Amino acid sequence: MELLPAQQIKFERMLEALREGYALYGFTPLDTPVIEAAEVLLTKGGGETEKQVYRITKGDSELALRFDLTVPLAKYVALNYGQLTFPFRRFQIGKVYRGERAQRGRFREFYQADIDVIGDGTLGILNDAEIPGIIYHVFRSLGLQDFVIRINNRKIFGGLFEAFGLRDKTMQIINAVDKIEKIGRESTVGILVDELAIPKTDAERIIDLLTCSQRGESPITALAAYQGKNALLDEGIEELFTVARYMEEFGVPDTHFTVDLTIARGLDYYTGTVYETIIPKHPEIGSICSGGRYDNLAEYYTDKKLPGVGISIGVTRLFYVLEEQGYLNDALLAAPADVLVLPMTDDFGPSVAFATALRSVGLRTQVYGEDKKFKAKMAYANKLNIPYVVFLGEDEIAQNKVTVKDMLTGEQETVTAREAADRIGAGIASRRAERPIKQEG
Amino acid sequence: MELLPAQQIKFERMLEALREGYALYGFTPLDTPVIEAAEVLLTKGGGETEKQVYRITKGDSELALRFDLTVPLAKYVALNYGQLTFPFRRFQIGKVYRGERAQRGRFREFYQADIDVIGDGTLGILNDAEIPGIIYHVFRSLGLQDFVIRINNRKIFGGLFEAFGLRDKTMQIINAVDKIEKIGRESTVGILVDELAIPKTDAERIIDLLTCSQRGESPITALAAYQGKNALLDEGIEELFTVARYMEEFGVPDTHFTVDLTIARGLDYYTGTVYETIIPKHPEIGSICSGGRYDNLAEYYTDKKLPGVGISIGVTRLFYVLEEQGYLNDALLAAPADVLVLPMTDDFGPSVAFATALRSVGLRTQVYGEDKKFKAKMAYANKLNIPYVVFLGEDEIAQNKVTVKDMLTGEQETVTAREAADRIGAGIASRRAERPIKQEG
Repeated sequence: MELLPAQQIKFERMLEALREGYALYGFTPLDTPVIEAAEVLLTKGGGETEKQVYRITKGDSELALRFDLTVPLAKYVALNYGQLTFPFRRFQIGKVYRGERAQRGRFREFYQADIDVIGDGTLGILNDAEIPGIIYHVFRSLGLQDFVIRINNRKIFGGLFEAFGLRDKTMQIINAVDKIEKIGRESTVGILVDELAIPKTDAERIIDLLTCSQRGESPITALAAYQGKNALLDEGIEELFTVARYMEEFGVPDTHFTVDLTIARGLDYYTGTVYETIIPKHPEIGSICSGGRYDNLAEYYTDKKLPGVGISIGVTRLFYVLEEQGYLNDALLAAPADVLVLPMTDDFGPSVAFATALRSVGLRTQVYGEDKKFKAKMAYANKLNIPYVVFLGEDEIAQNKVTVKDMLTGEQETVTAREAADRIGAGIASRRAERPIKQEG
Repeated sequence: MELLPAQQIKFERMLEALREGYALYGFTPLDTPVIEAAEVLLTKGGGETEKQVYRITKGDSELALRFDLTVPLAKYVALNYGQLTFPFRRFQIGKVYRGERAQRGRFREFYQADIDVIGDGTLGILNDAEIPGIIYHVFRSLGLQDFVIRINNRKIFGGLFEAFGLRDKTMQIINAVDKIEKIGRESTVGILVDELAIPKTDAERIIDLLTCSQRGESPITALAAYQGKNALLDEGIEELFTVARYMEEFGVPDTHFTVDLTIARGLDYYTGTVYETIIPKHPEIGSICSGGRYDNLAEYYTDKKLPGVGISIGVTRLFYVLEEQGYLNDALLAAPADVLVLPMTDDFGPSVAFATALRSVGLRTQVYGEDKKFKAKMAYANKLNIPYVVFLGEDEIAQNKVTVKDMLTGEQETVTAREAADRIGAGIASRRAERPIKQEG
């Protein structure tokens, strides 16, 4: 994805809001190399990941490009364990690389924006509630209105299937449940019965319990019947409802999150809380932000037990789908400058000096120094949607004034430099309050 | 280069200041792919560059990692020519890759921060003066005090050597002059006489003219004798002094720039104004920011004539040398948070609510939710240098107050939430005014 300038500015504003949002919650920025030794990135070996990784051979070294930000985090934490303070809260916004077939909305080089909290030995459950709290506030600060964070706890799967005497089939059942949104209740029950040899009544009870919130039933009520069956299930239920309760304290309104017992987020990485985030009007987009709790971040690099919880936004894809849905805010100032200063005399000195004054009050200012006709100069400002143009001709210079033109209204006035800066500053401040996304709730 | 969290925050502050500084001058951010087709990156073919490029083979595609930000800019401008508005002013801050032998202060993966202005057919000389003006202001905003921007114009070389009947030896003479700082006057004259068969008196006159500013003589006076000899020389002189004059208008004090007729910046890329920037106390560092004017940005991709002027900061190397010289500002707030909220009750609710209030006034806030002893909690704040800790115990909650501890002074007070936020806000504002670099002028 390579963007034209106005789109790039919108994308940058999204990255900026993410950086600011994450920092506000006390996460420290991290930057890890894009190129790593292949053996560092491919510790797990085999599988889909390996096929997608870009490999580089340079002399004797086998190198590869990172395909996510989690593996580099694991390596970083293991390597710098003695110098880090735990819980270690880091955010990282950076490009990752996957050699997928390029297709609509999927890119080989794309941005991820991750936050993770890593504990040393243990990590409190409050973090599991804070993470979706952060995501809620960050999405709102971007201007996104209509989204729902779905939470679940993987321990409930393990505990529940144990209660049915199906513990050894946990992974296969999760695998089937993971597809429920695509293939529907009947086919999922079918897989459980036909492929996993689960009695039909048990299969239906399991599926009906897990899908209770889709039918408007409360997971609390539905799970109550199973409380006390085994320690894992009780732990999962306790964690899930603690997280849900603190999410409210973190300011997530109940319109924006839901407990959904079908959420699994893949097969084996997550061990407790799991999250995904959907835009209800556009289920076809899938999850725009996912993550969860894991027991051991860096088992391939260290013997230390490092549990963590984190979440990831695929920013490039999010930007692409928001643009496709018309959700990017056209009122966002996407011009390269707030003001264009047009010198109307041969000596550019007064214009340069006035531009310096505008910059000193934080206004992004260009001086147009090309030898073109007046019409071409105005066309330049128009094409770039620069909101204000300032003329400095002989009359203005003699009067110690400037002429300001508001390009939106067409109004034009000759005022002092100070008045001009104030007027432009007020107009730009209101434009800057616009958010990158504009979506009706 | 992989940094520990506190150093990373300093580095991020540098990138942030660069982004803000460039944007203030009306440059638009650009982001181009790190991976490109090898044929796009290696148009010039052969030479040192090709050896350093990281290559990737994926299926049938020959890919490579970008080794600078100029070639991707050329491709971008050629590809999007019809949709861009000229002069096209872009900045790009991103990683580039060169497979050099890793050595002290040289990295295989490093950040460059570039600005360029690209004209369509022509490009006014005012841009040549603005570019070093921007660099001056950006370096000052970083906190750098002691640096000098050296400027020259390549046309003076061509014109001057033509005046001596040495036009066909221009490149060889520039090559020799480029080394003058390393090998000295005598050896340079020697090369001109022995290798290039230039009469000794001419060789000495050329070298003495070019090195006039090193002896405290004015280049204006020195060049005056040659004015009118040929059009190229006159053009070079005229451009050089126009740039020097406007640099003053752009606010560069004469302590921070100098006309130096020996500056060449490589053999054949630049065609007019050239820049380099040195720290006088540390000549061994070399140039920390270099660039110049070129006639044709994208000749390998388009027939359009696209003259440009630009400059590049090697940010990773700059950060490394500044750190090595002890120039990074230790007073800069490098903690991951401004405030740590410590809940002293089992219910984290009031702490979470107070943290939300602090964040809403822009304070970076963590809530410590781990089940640890009080001492361990304080050790966490201490190790991370978090400037304020807030306690919320039963007493505080009952009184609707909080206890704020200033970790620098050790002072501790129980106040209302509002007073706490105000007090912390004021303390943090003064810390935020610190710049990433602290260097005596």
